[in-house]
Order: sequence, then C-alpha cells, then structure tokens
Amino acid sequence: MSVAQLLDGTAVARRSFAETAERAADFAAAQGRSVCLATVLIGDDPASQTYVRMKQRRAAQLGLESRRVRLSAETTTDEAVAAVRALSEDDTVDGILVQHPAPAQVDELAVFEAIAPKKDVDGVTMHSFAAMGLSANGFHSCTPEGIVRLLDAYDVPTAGRRVCVVGRSAILGKPVGLLLLARDATVTFCHSHTTDLAAQVSEADIVVAAVGRPELVRGEWIKPDAVVVDAGYNPGNVGDVEFSRAAARASYITPVPGGVGPMTIAVLMEQTVTAAENRVR
Amino acid sequence: MSVAQLLDGTAVARRSFAETAERAADFAAAQGRSVCLATVLIGDDPASQTYVRMKQRRAAQLGLESRRVRLSAETTTDEAVAAVRALSEDDTVDGILVQHPAPAQVDELAVFEAIAPKKDVDGVTMHSFAAMGLSANGFHSCTPEGIVRLLDAYDVPTAGRRVCVVGRSAILGKPVGLLLLARDATVTFCHSHTTDLAAQVSEADIVVAAVGRPELVRGEWIKPDAVVVDAGYNPGNVGDVEFSRAAARASYITPVPGGVGPMTIAVLMEQTVTAAENRVR
Repeated sequence: MSVAQLLDGTAVARRSFAETAERAADFAAAQGRSVCLATVLIGDDPASQTYVRMKQRRAAQLGLESRRVRLSAETTTDEAVAAVRALSEDDTVDGILVQHPAPAQVDELAVFEAIAPKKDVDGVTMHSFAAMGLSANGFHSCTPEGIVRLLDAYDVPTAGRRVCVVGRSAILGKPVGLLLLARDATVTFCHSHTTDLAAQVSEADIVVAAVGRPELVRGEWIKPDAVVVDAGYNPGNVGDVEFSRAAARASYITPVPGGVGPMTIAVLMEQTVTAAENRVR
Repeated sequence: MSVAQLLDGTAVARRSFAETAERAADFAAAQGRSVCLATVLIGDDPASQTYVRMKQRRAAQLGLESRRVRLSAETTTDEAVAAVRALSEDDTVDGILVQHPAPAQVDELAVFEAIAPKKDVDGVTMHSFAAMGLSANGFHSCTPEGIVRLLDAYDVPTAGRRVCVVGRSAILGKPVGLLLLARDATVTFCHSHTTDLAAQVSEADIVVAAVGRPELVRGEWIKPDAVVVDAGYNPGNVGDVEFSRAAARASYITPVPGGVGPMTIAVLMEQTVTAAENRVR
C-alpha cells in the first residue's frame, strides 16, 4: 500500500518567509520606516488571541511592525467600524487584519468593509472576494491563496481536474473554489445540504476540506492518487479529513498541523509587504 | 415518451413587468419625476444596438425614462469611464446599464467599476459580484437573477440538488452558480477545460447552459426528469442545448427564445425601480 507524500506547508512557508523578509528589509531601507501590519482583535476569545499573537510574532521575525488594536467584548459595530476606518485612513498603516470571528453583536461584514481594499491584506472585503472571483486586481483571502501556492509548490496540475470543495464559507470555501476555477479546474462546491458527499468526494482529483468538522471526510471516500488538502483545524490537532486512511489512498496530502496553516500566515505576510510597496509606487 | 413542461419566461416576465410598472407609477406620483435608466452603448455592434433598444422600449412601456448615451467605436477607456462616472454622480439618474461587450480597446471592467454600486442595476460591478457570492446587500446580475426567479416561479427546488453550470463568465456562469449555491444546491462549474462534460451534465438535477455555443449540451446527456435552463442565445434562435432531444428527457426546460431572455429584462427593470426607491428612502 502506497502512502501519500506530504504537502509540507511548513517548508514551503519557510521559503516564502525568507523572501518576504528580504522585501521588507528593502522597503525599510528605501522608505526609512518598516512595513506596518495593524491587527484588530475584538473580544477575549482565547483562540483568536493566540492567532493574532502568532501573526504578530511572525511579523516581528520578518521585520514588520505591528500596530495592535484591542477592542472589548462589548464593542458595537459602529465602534469597530470607526476603529478600522481610522486604520484605513492612517498613512503609517500598510495592511489591516481584523481577526475572525467578531463577537456576535458585531456585524463582521460591516467591519470588514471598513478596510480600504488597498490595505485588505487578509482578503476579507467584498472587493477582494470579487477580485478572486473575477481574476481582477486585489488581495486574496490568505488560506485560499495559501492552498493554491501549496499545490503550485508541488506542481499539482489543476486544469481540467475535478475539484471537490467541502465547505462554502466566505473566506475559505467559496474563494478557494473560485481560485481553482480560475486555474481551469472543474469545481464542485459541497456543503451541509449536499446529499451525496461521499460520491462527490470519491470522484474528485483534488479534495479541499474546509468545513471545520473533525474527520467529516472519510479516508475510504478518497479516489486513489487524489490530492487531499485539509484546511480544517479542530481541537486535538484533528483535521476535516480522516488522515491516516486518506493518506493510504492519496498521492499528496496536507498534514494537520503543518499543511495549510503556515501557508495562511505566509500569504498574509507577503500581501502586507505588497500593500506597502503598492502604496509608495 | 414524456415531454418537458416549458419554463415560460415570457409569461413570468409579464407578471413582473406589471408589478414594476405599478411601482414606477407610485414612484413618479410621489416624487414628481419618473424613474430614470441610463443606457450606455459604445460602438456600432448591431446586436448591442438591438439589445439596448429593446431595453429602452420596455422601460418606456413601464413608465421609466431612458437617458441614452452613445459613444463612438473609437472611445477610449478613459472617455468611457468619465461618461459613466458622470452618470453615477448625476442625481437625476437612478440606474446605469453599460451594454456588453465594449469595443476591444476599452477596458470593460474599468468602465463597469465607474458605475456606483447603488446604480448598478445590471449587476456588473465587483461590488455586485461579491453581493451575489456573499449574500450581501447589492444588485444581482440580471440573467442569473432571472434564472433563479424563473425556477422559483415553477417551484423548482434547489436545496441539495446537483446543479451543473456550463460556462463561467463574470456576469452569467459564475454568478448563477453562486446564487444557486446560496440556495443550498451542490454546484459544479464546467467550462472549456472540463474533460468529462457529458458525465457532469448527466449527473445534474438542474443544468444551466451559459456558454454561447450552439447545442453544445446534447439531449442524451440530460438525466431523466432533470430541469434544463438554456441561457445561450446563438444565431438562428438556437440555444446551448439540443432542445428537442433534451425536452424529451427533462421535466422542465426553457424555450429559446422566450425562456431566460425576458427574465433578464424583467430583473433589469425591477432593479432600476428598486434603485430609485432606495435613493429616496
């Protein structure tokens, strides 16, 4: 029985980080200031705090400055919008990350829309969504773009391949499907109303699991030699795919963790430097 | 052998026109001016001239005013953008339609982006694309929305159904797939790189052909009792689906013409009145 090769996001991201650090250093040398990423954290969700801290730490390692905005768990939509709009208008801020999810009383889409498209380095605005869907200029959502980069790093062909995306969220399932559609894949979007998920997955050359349900995708559904990308990250380091049995059938598979996650941060950092470069161009 | 019931777009559009005319009359009575649709035609393409004239004529029948802007075949992108931007800023204009396609030297996407989202009654801006993809506020592309309305008019269920969209254009294939995904269908996008189109179509409960290639979709591919929506319109009144053989297998099918086309205009008219109502609200 063959075992799939790992799509090693940690290794691919490491190369990206090195390039991004160089570009950040060049920018700082030329402009006399560091690239600045503003992070907005609303509320006290421990996982969100961890995610923001990871991003800030990585930014610091690459020579980026972080601007940290903390808003209380009682923040209103208007207050959050005002805070983000101020960052959009602040000439010393290059990129803005609003950590998802916001507390329930906050209209997250309204807050995202307060991010100027040219600073939307996390790819969460309507403009960025359309840029991905229409292959127009704009930033990409970090996880979807990270998945495409990871496939590229391993020369996984997409044109004419059947892709099954499990999940249809605004910043993961839908955009990754649209990006792969732009790469000429035949893309199917599956979700909680899909009645024949096993059949859909079993027909796919590339499976992208992006739904946040532990091991929803069973190993025996995977077509022999398919490519499996697991963007799920559930408690206990469990992905959305039943890893070991899927790995026994697939040609390539992402580990969890160490697959999609590092790529997400790599794209965020790279797009932040690009935003800075674009602004002085 | 059963024969499919027709999805009679002409009849459904007629009911929509009657409602829109009433709303337009109410608006005129309350505001002392008619709802105004601006049409922008760039160049001399005969088909485009015909389409614009049809829309203007329908607008007049429903009590809408038309503002006609004609730009020469030599118009530059900058000139077209300036003309459209002027309409976006003109308080007497409620909706703007830029007839597709523009001449080759014009960057059509840039011209579309000059349409203010609140006047984008044809649903061609990035904002409108994202609104469709993210179920956010905004106008919808007219043909995709018309297709959804037509399915609704015949109580065709979409949740959990397999939809095969053949075509991935910015204002037809992609948005209609996204709208049906929002209606909980399992949606597959097929296109010129799809290697197994016959198999994909044959698995679909609803087929939307939106590619502009005469009879590309063969009748024998249609699953028995599937619903067939033909958004193609090719010379000689030929659609993208082999009509008679598809009709012998399908439960519902759109005629060409008289299926999707009238619905497109119905949505355009309705959205124009909505734009006017929104602006005075």
